[in-house]
Amino acid sequence: MSFGELSTPTLLLEKTKLIANINKLDLRLSTLSTPLRPHLKTCKSARVAELIPNITQNGITVSTLHEARYFLDNGHTDILYAVSIAPQKLTQIKQLQDQGASMTLILDTLEAAKMVAQSSEELQAVFPCLIEIDCDGKRAGLPPQAPEIVEIAAFLNEQSGTQMKGVLSHSGGSYYCQTIQELQEMAEQERISITTAAQRIRNAGLPCPVVSAGSTPTATYAATLEGVTEYRAGVYVFQDMVMEALGVCQTNDIALSILTTVISHNKSGNRLIIDAGSLALSTDPGKKNRLGEPHYGCVCDATTGQPIDGLWVTSTNQEHGLISLDNSNRSLTDFPIGTQFRILPNHACITAAAYPGYHILDDQVPPAVIDYWDRSNGW
Amino acid sequence: MSFGELSTPTLLLEKTKLIANINKLDLRLSTLSTPLRPHLKTCKSARVAELIPNITQNGITVSTLHEARYFLDNGHTDILYAVSIAPQKLTQIKQLQDQGASMTLILDTLEAAKMVAQSSEELQAVFPCLIEIDCDGKRAGLPPQAPEIVEIAAFLNEQSGTQMKGVLSHSGGSYYCQTIQELQEMAEQERISITTAAQRIRNAGLPCPVVSAGSTPTATYAATLEGVTEYRAGVYVFQDMVMEALGVCQTNDIALSILTTVISHNKSGNRLIIDAGSLALSTDPGKKNRLGEPHYGCVCDATTGQPIDGLWVTSTNQEHGLISLDNSNRSLTDFPIGTQFRILPNHACITAAAYPGYHILDDQVPPAVIDYWDRSNGW
Repeated sequence: MSFGELSTPTLLLEKTKLIANINKLDLRLSTLSTPLRPHLKTCKSARVAELIPNITQNGITVSTLHEARYFLDNGHTDILYAVSIAPQKLTQIKQLQDQGASMTLILDTLEAAKMVAQSSEELQAVFPCLIEIDCDGKRAGLPPQAPEIVEIAAFLNEQSGTQMKGVLSHSGGSYYCQTIQELQEMAEQERISITTAAQRIRNAGLPCPVVSAGSTPTATYAATLEGVTEYRAGVYVFQDMVMEALGVCQTNDIALSILTTVISHNKSGNRLIIDAGSLALSTDPGKKNRLGEPHYGCVCDATTGQPIDGLWVTSTNQEHGLISLDNSNRSLTDFPIGTQFRILPNHACITAAAYPGYHILDDQVPPAVIDYWDRSNGW
Repeated sequence: MSFGELSTPTLLLEKTKLIANINKLDLRLSTLSTPLRPHLKTCKSARVAELIPNITQNGITVSTLHEARYFLDNGHTDILYAVSIAPQKLTQIKQLQDQGASMTLILDTLEAAKMVAQSSEELQAVFPCLIEIDCDGKRAGLPPQAPEIVEIAAFLNEQSGTQMKGVLSHSGGSYYCQTIQELQEMAEQERISITTAAQRIRNAGLPCPVVSAGSTPTATYAATLEGVTEYRAGVYVFQDMVMEALGVCQTNDIALSILTTVISHNKSGNRLIIDAGSLALSTDPGKKNRLGEPHYGCVCDATTGQPIDGLWVTSTNQEHGLISLDNSNRSLTDFPIGTQFRILPNHACITAAAYPGYHILDDQVPPAVIDYWDRSNGW
């Protein structure tokens, strides 16, 4: 299928930018002497995963058991399921183990640890676990000085059905940083938080071989990762407008976009209407644009992929996207009905999940569609 | 599969509430003597569609060509594609016609009408069209007094490849109403807008047999639909928290929910963490709750389906939902890890699109899973 024959809305992935993003972070973490355990919740694609250097040795991170099954089917056996385990899911974890997966779980309460230990007996399984550490107060995990950390570590270590494997943190707070310096400080805050927790466990005479941290913004700006044994990042493979707003990438690095078509001109509102709306772009609000305004994506020329100054998706309904021309020097007649755009998404992880796969583009102008790669959506 | 065996997050649909919602609006529109042409963009389900009275006679509305193909495969032939047509999609429309569909298109510019006429020659097809009328300034369509309306109607009428079939409006502005009275006024505003446009076309000696209007809120509160030949509504089959906030339904009418599991307790933040996040619930902000706060869903007991006072999904990440207990009289220990909830979604159309289908529940407590119905997601 040629680029011009694609039916809109649809998902595009530029292979050259994808590979450049992958290799850039690989080089950065190599320089910091820390292995990358990529978080595949963004791409959910075996074809993207196979481009990531050393992925077989370093292992992978997933956010759903559906991803775990899919990547196991595609030959990835060392799998970190980086969402707190619910007791109801342990039967599925055991099935994955029986099919050859080396599964690592996470938890942050003694209650959960006890449930895992109990299920391990019923299921005749051993479950390796990391204790989640909270480095920024944004979501889950125990504060680095919490007494429960050592208590849980001791419990996991003494039970026959659980294995105390280490600690894990996620610096989601990096998404709220305003400057590069704040991102560097957040990276260091996470490093200190998690290595402090690991040291407390070791000081108690307990094992803590794995110290797993990370996010794309901190991976990009961390000055040192001393004491961290693996780093996780996910959205870096595609990048998106949130990463651009944070200073983590340039617009031109963003490999993922949505192809859309102008379907109407609304003269009274001075806006274009496109066939990419809330489902095609997601309703993730992302970050404000350079004009300080909320938006649902950056509008680019479909052929060149270059942003069109002043054009943003200003609002969405289910299958309608609205592009106001008020802040541009363009008029409706510049974009006849049938004109196509590429939209750079706010949050690649969420937008991509609306599609069963990617149309892979080369870097020609106009691009050629060189392949189609599937995704593993759902649960 | 029993209710207790469902893996979370997953999508639930209560059949008794669904049928009650369907029959309630059917009765209401019968009283107003206006046929309902249901908008199937919400349910995207043939099994839901077959519960709607007179659907074969009245025809259906869709928002994507994927829906059109799916419903045609399921025996629905009278299909209104209620999103402005792009010229690139006419080949697919012709394919649907060749497979037995009676397709009606919409447009709101002379430019689009000319493109459709030109394609009709190339494709050896005739395309029936409605002209979209703007009744509230919120999205698309021509204002009722716009000179272009008669111009487009005349063009569609005189071309051999197009058929001037009527006018269409959507009162999306009803979603911004604050009171029932405002909803009634919006319904009347839409009725006057579209019947005015229709009359202007007829006054010019042109045909305008179809006058198609609607939204779930205005369908619920319109005092009269005189002059309107068909009404469209979609979300009414499920209802959701946006409809509840508008006064269109009660919480207890909402038939759609997400089953989720408590996966962690975050003591420092006094919040529960559940395994339904941005993908499982969507990031649609909906309306503020009774406390005047933004939220991502109303938390209900999994077994009874009844709301738990003061519990709302307060924020989401990709696979994490956070439920703050700050505004409740509950403590973390009231909800052990492994506790399950049903979440009533903000915007049913968007939330349901994350799932391939529905687990159908009966109205027992605890419910039984009596069926599984698929959906037609994507484009």
